[in-house]
Amino acid sequence: MLKNDASLDRMFHALADASRRQMVDRLSRGPASVSELAQPLAMSLPAVVQHLAVLEESGLVRTEKVGRVRTCTLDSAAMSRAEQWLSDRRLGWERRLDRLGSLLAADPGGPEKKT
Amino acid sequence: MLKNDASLDRMFHALADASRRQMVDRLSRGPASVSELAQPLAMSLPAVVQHLAVLEESGLVRTEKVGRVRTCTLDSAAMSRAEQWLSDRRLGWERRLDRLGSLLAADPGGPEKKT
Repeated sequence: MLKNDASLDRMFHALADASRRQMVDRLSRGPASVSELAQPLAMSLPAVVQHLAVLEESGLVRTEKVGRVRTCTLDSAAMSRAEQWLSDRRLGWERRLDRLGSLLAADPGGPEKKT
Repeated sequence: MLKNDASLDRMFHALADASRRQMVDRLSRGPASVSELAQPLAMSLPAVVQHLAVLEESGLVRTEKVGRVRTCTLDSAAMSRAEQWLSDRRLGWERRLDRLGSLLAADPGGPEKKT
């Protein structure tokens, strides 16, 4: 098991909800206050705050309170870690398909080439 | 809301579990039977089958039964969709930071450049 397993659990769990993904999508266009995040969502402010807490615990979003306003920011390094996990596995699989393709091409007993 | 929301829900949910990620990791190195998938996992075969069902419902893994053996294969196109969702948001955020950097560099009232 990898050390960062729990962290990936939290990140993928945070992303497995359409409202939280909508918040991440909004934050990809720049920082936002909690009420700005809540505006397009058809839910109560406490519900938004709960979703935000899940995103914050996952590390995908950071929040900072200045005065009375809490500003939310996307953590692109955390986004990148989740993305990297997927891309490493996908590339592993695609490299394997490429190797199989080369083996088939080199195999004299393989399917005949059409010219 | 995007049409593929439910599909992304299922994919990220499937990935939010270390055992299921271990199964995806194994499948990134090539197709495997259910018992091959189960081998490194410290759990009962029925538990493995349940995790496999979650992966199959998410579209990340396809299974095919030939005779008595069910063979599991990674769907790299589905992996790619989840990866793309993350990369689009991360790139959006990074492009925004780049634009801010350019604005600051062009702003005569901005911080002095150190030479």
